[in-house]
Amino acid sequence: MIKTLFYDNEAVMILDQSQLPDKVEYLRCKTIDDVAEAIKKLKVRGAPLIGVTAAFGLAMAIADYQGEPAELENYFEQARVKLASTRPTAVNLFWALERMEKVFKQESVTEANREQVGERLKQEAIRMYEEDIAINRAMGEYGQELLPEGSQVMTICNAGALATCGYGTALGVIRAAANRGKIDKVWACETRPVLQGARLTVWELMQDKIPVTLISDNMAAYVMQLEQVNAVIAGADRIAANGDTANKIGTYALAVLAAYHRIPFYIAAPLSTLDFKSASGSDIPVEQRPPEEIREYRGLYFTVPEVDVFNPAFDITPHHLITGIITEKGVFKPPYEIAFKKMDQD
Amino acid sequence: MIKTLFYDNEAVMILDQSQLPDKVEYLRCKTIDDVAEAIKKLKVRGAPLIGVTAAFGLAMAIADYQGEPAELENYFEQARVKLASTRPTAVNLFWALERMEKVFKQESVTEANREQVGERLKQEAIRMYEEDIAINRAMGEYGQELLPEGSQVMTICNAGALATCGYGTALGVIRAAANRGKIDKVWACETRPVLQGARLTVWELMQDKIPVTLISDNMAAYVMQLEQVNAVIAGADRIAANGDTANKIGTYALAVLAAYHRIPFYIAAPLSTLDFKSASGSDIPVEQRPPEEIREYRGLYFTVPEVDVFNPAFDITPHHLITGIITEKGVFKPPYEIAFKKMDQD
Repeated sequence: MIKTLFYDNEAVMILDQSQLPDKVEYLRCKTIDDVAEAIKKLKVRGAPLIGVTAAFGLAMAIADYQGEPAELENYFEQARVKLASTRPTAVNLFWALERMEKVFKQESVTEANREQVGERLKQEAIRMYEEDIAINRAMGEYGQELLPEGSQVMTICNAGALATCGYGTALGVIRAAANRGKIDKVWACETRPVLQGARLTVWELMQDKIPVTLISDNMAAYVMQLEQVNAVIAGADRIAANGDTANKIGTYALAVLAAYHRIPFYIAAPLSTLDFKSASGSDIPVEQRPPEEIREYRGLYFTVPEVDVFNPAFDITPHHLITGIITEKGVFKPPYEIAFKKMDQD
Repeated sequence: MIKTLFYDNEAVMILDQSQLPDKVEYLRCKTIDDVAEAIKKLKVRGAPLIGVTAAFGLAMAIADYQGEPAELENYFEQARVKLASTRPTAVNLFWALERMEKVFKQESVTEANREQVGERLKQEAIRMYEEDIAINRAMGEYGQELLPEGSQVMTICNAGALATCGYGTALGVIRAAANRGKIDKVWACETRPVLQGARLTVWELMQDKIPVTLISDNMAAYVMQLEQVNAVIAGADRIAANGDTANKIGTYALAVLAAYHRIPFYIAAPLSTLDFKSASGSDIPVEQRPPEEIREYRGLYFTVPEVDVFNPAFDITPHHLITGIITEKGVFKPPYEIAFKKMDQD
């Protein structure tokens, strides 16, 4: 499977997803600014992958630090803030940066051990990377049990290997089910405006020879009316304590449409997507993206260039529309508030 | 207001809507094949406009006929079939061709009166053209009464002046309401894959200085959740006897989403869109369009070029999701079957 990122000691190498499926190119990020820019511009995307990429960025910044040891703490904090400010919704970013901070704060940096500190941070990022793949595989195993033989599954955006360090969340579940011969067809919503469904999910599934049919987002309801769709599975960028879920714009619409057509609607996400600090969806900030994403694609305009545009990157699906949340610890069922608390105490 | 088509005695001049908003260009259709091709390729589109365009095409073919008078009936029939086979869903096309046929069959064609027959058909097409504008204005007046002051209205595709001979159906209602200062904002769904919302509705409303905000189709639910949307208004390509309505793909999704958010959902269409031969939506044929419409835009690919695609041009909204059907004879309310029958008897 293609690597979404790797660290070559001098740079974080990022698969430039904005070029897919036309070009498979790695972007060499040599500074923390390069990494922050790559996240902002969606060259690297997907909540779990953003988190690990930021962790690698931070490890690289510290490993390369040439200043006074006494100033390293300040430098670390500046780097952390820079990465944290790239995208506001995906909570895995903050989770990964916090985890790196904990490791960093265990160290007392001197001239002598500076390199070791950098190495420890790098090891932590590598651990996160490997854990993410293992988590996705576990999620896939739990999730595939929800799907019957001959399933048609609908998905939005790319919650695949490309959104993670490998295997995928929603697509990980589909992949695990496909390995058991259960997948008849995946309906991939193209996912305007950035077309992660058309560009990434289609590419990823075709590479794995999993049957996929591409539709524009406004066809989802009609497909549900016509066909036997067994489940809708989406990823998540942040899940509030009550189960309300922020994910790619259009997810909320699919949840309403699935409920109307009595189709189970699942979220697949690692536990690092849970945010107990957000009591409900109204506490989750929704990122607004540049209007040009709606107006044009690679310089080709779809509309009057001056038109007013609304371009939220995410929407919030209320918990009562979610049939289950697939995680590496099993499938949570409503009421989520209670299920999450119980898990937290276990 | 811009003319969507006119007849200059030698050719049907069609505003090439596939070029909008980048270029305002008229396509000179000198043969019936030119007209049929322009309809198939969506250079002229919109159910009411397709009907009138086909009528002009037929009038032109007969006016230009150089063969034997005895063969004219066969020639007429061939021309009618050619135009009728361009697009299967919009019933206004068949309605307009039938109306032309009735006029034609009243004539007994001889060498002497051949030109007069061509002229009579041309006059009938002009009458349809003028009637369509009057019908739209009447629809606008009835429809605007449904909207309160400060309304936010959502629409899909282009059911505007560009879809008709002028003024528009759904946009005619919005226009009439805007003339009374009632429109705070129009939410235009971009309407993938052919982007009639982004290309045509935005352009048309901006020309009239009616406030419009463009969204991608998958944002509609989130806008309904966030904002005070007072109504969704869509056009129609065919309305069955029970009120089930075929319209641009995505309309059904908006109807489900509007019901969920308790927003009134209206269809605006002339009575020529009613098809009593279709008892319900399941009797309406849904046109499947070429896969390239989903895969690329003006040659720029969005996805893996070989991907499997589903590309229905329309969907069917069941009558129970439609709050009212706005026509030139007033607003029909459910049960539509009874309301339509009553009107038919009046």
